[in-house]
Amino acid sequence: MKRRQFLKLGAAAGTGVAAATLSAPAIAQSMPEVRWRLASSFPRVLDTLHGAADTLSKRVAEMTDNKFQIQVFPAGELVPGLQVLDAVQAGSVECSFTTGYYNWGKDTAFAFTTGIPFGLNARMGEAWYQHGGGLELVQELFAQYNTHVIKMGDTGGQMGGWYRKEINSVEDLKGLKFRIGGFAGRILAKMGAIPQQIAAGDVYPALEKGTLDAVEWIAPTDDEKFGFVKVAKFYYFPGWWEGGASGHFLVNMGKWNELPKYYQAILTSAAHDAGSWFTAKYDYSNPAALKRLVAQGAILKPFPIPVMDAGYRATEEACAEEAAKNPRFKKMYDSVAAFRKDAYQWWQVNELSFDTYQVRAQTRT
Amino acid sequence: MKRRQFLKLGAAAGTGVAAATLSAPAIAQSMPEVRWRLASSFPRVLDTLHGAADTLSKRVAEMTDNKFQIQVFPAGELVPGLQVLDAVQAGSVECSFTTGYYNWGKDTAFAFTTGIPFGLNARMGEAWYQHGGGLELVQELFAQYNTHVIKMGDTGGQMGGWYRKEINSVEDLKGLKFRIGGFAGRILAKMGAIPQQIAAGDVYPALEKGTLDAVEWIAPTDDEKFGFVKVAKFYYFPGWWEGGASGHFLVNMGKWNELPKYYQAILTSAAHDAGSWFTAKYDYSNPAALKRLVAQGAILKPFPIPVMDAGYRATEEACAEEAAKNPRFKKMYDSVAAFRKDAYQWWQVNELSFDTYQVRAQTRT
Repeated sequence: MKRRQFLKLGAAAGTGVAAATLSAPAIAQSMPEVRWRLASSFPRVLDTLHGAADTLSKRVAEMTDNKFQIQVFPAGELVPGLQVLDAVQAGSVECSFTTGYYNWGKDTAFAFTTGIPFGLNARMGEAWYQHGGGLELVQELFAQYNTHVIKMGDTGGQMGGWYRKEINSVEDLKGLKFRIGGFAGRILAKMGAIPQQIAAGDVYPALEKGTLDAVEWIAPTDDEKFGFVKVAKFYYFPGWWEGGASGHFLVNMGKWNELPKYYQAILTSAAHDAGSWFTAKYDYSNPAALKRLVAQGAILKPFPIPVMDAGYRATEEACAEEAAKNPRFKKMYDSVAAFRKDAYQWWQVNELSFDTYQVRAQTRT
Repeated sequence: MKRRQFLKLGAAAGTGVAAATLSAPAIAQSMPEVRWRLASSFPRVLDTLHGAADTLSKRVAEMTDNKFQIQVFPAGELVPGLQVLDAVQAGSVECSFTTGYYNWGKDTAFAFTTGIPFGLNARMGEAWYQHGGGLELVQELFAQYNTHVIKMGDTGGQMGGWYRKEINSVEDLKGLKFRIGGFAGRILAKMGAIPQQIAAGDVYPALEKGTLDAVEWIAPTDDEKFGFVKVAKFYYFPGWWEGGASGHFLVNMGKWNELPKYYQAILTSAAHDAGSWFTAKYDYSNPAALKRLVAQGAILKPFPIPVMDAGYRATEEACAEEAAKNPRFKKMYDSVAAFRKDAYQWWQVNELSFDTYQVRAQTRT
């Protein structure tokens, strides 16, 4: 109901009490009660990612005086973690916290929604989304699936994973049974590895038995919880296939359109805020987790440059192949690649020179 | 007015119209009308920083169906840019967008609210604030000035500024008339420079005439607008005194406490969201601005390592001096320095190795 109509009705009532009530400046707006369910792609044990969805829910409740409630369900409780887009599309849940590239099989352009190998780092990704036309491209893609998408944070750069043996050359990747998925899996396959899709709970025993040679996961905070260091001690960096990985808050398009504009605005800022919360949580907790992992026997190893170079070439090949087949992939690739080139020129000058000096200064003391 | 009182008054009115209105499920909450004025520390020409305050105002209006309006005034229109904390403290304006270290003269601990020389980069700063106890320390400090503070973004790493002559050694800093303020000014003074405080509009002519030898400003996006390249072509990096610089949204404590909790929550998320907007805007626009500046004749120069080393030692000295005098400074320094050490170990492993590779890959193509 509009304020004007409301005032008119009040005046018609013609009682002193009603008039006093209606003219009170406090009564200007109605806030409807809304209850939604959120299906997360992440299990509770990944407490930073799970916590991001909880933080979103908390912020929305706080901003609406508890009128808008979002109940968070970890992966598998309502919907399997990799099928949340289907559930949101169908409207069987109202919303989800996930990351878009899980849907790479539906359309290869979904790779860009999270980030491609040798893509943008977390800050550049945010810049591309907010000011480089990225959000519009990503929203266009999700709209094909009856879904409104809001960017929600970034994990920051991920690690290259845990390996039972050293990787000294590209040759060492040949035949490597490697738990890695999506577009990165295709790149690693081009390099000779054998990508495997294995459920989270089965990875540790597979690594222990040697039916799996390596696993890529996230970063120290999460990797530590799974105890991989006990069965695969070589911990490689950087995770060049995930220099940054965006999170996404998905809302069924019909449910989104039903909301008053101010609830849409609240969901948008809440998602951005919860995104910043979880990026910062990774950035705060990874340093301490890395120290503990090294104390537990993790052997830190940089990927040899020739391996990185081979990965870069394989990525360019795979992108060219997809761009030739999928106009949406091409459009996103062109947009990301143009910004990446300029962005890294600037990064080299400023952020990189500062951070490089700081690393030197901090390690000499 | 509380919901309970509202219902009671409505029932007392006893008219059909009023009862129907009150029982409609949509009317669950009242949102009061609020009109505030925001005094910014930044002029309109710094359109990214000015735009951040506009974005905050827009988000708050959108989230409250235009019930909460914040009118933004650039520096100098209501309050001089460096005196906004006084105005907020006194309640002559309700709120401000600024950065805390402008108040370094009141308490040297304010240096940490924005960031100290050789401090944390933008992402680490966010991590320290949100998860490392930083926000609590900063809020304690601002509370001494009757002010509630919310962190609002970061400029990212800044440049080292514009110089009429090359800086090849620490000797070249001796006697350098350098526009630089606050804690960084004290460090540069220790290194032999002569810090100058000059209003923004007077910097260009002073550089042109040579009454000023150098100016540190922000980064390419903003530096370009002032045309410094025409009168001081050596553009040094990195700005080691500002590896990151946090913005702050300040609210008069009384005004803050008068707000319903959900308006407090809306302001908090809106400030975080607008902060992310402007960090991303710098990250998006600096690369293109840097290219234009180089085309206009800017000569990019890294500070020689011995100059950086001398700056680092001078910073450590100045921090030790202040820590001995000011317990609050010591507490903040200890907190930042401990996190910085761990954070850069992790950064070296992951972000830095990824970004370094990417710079190489992007410049070879």
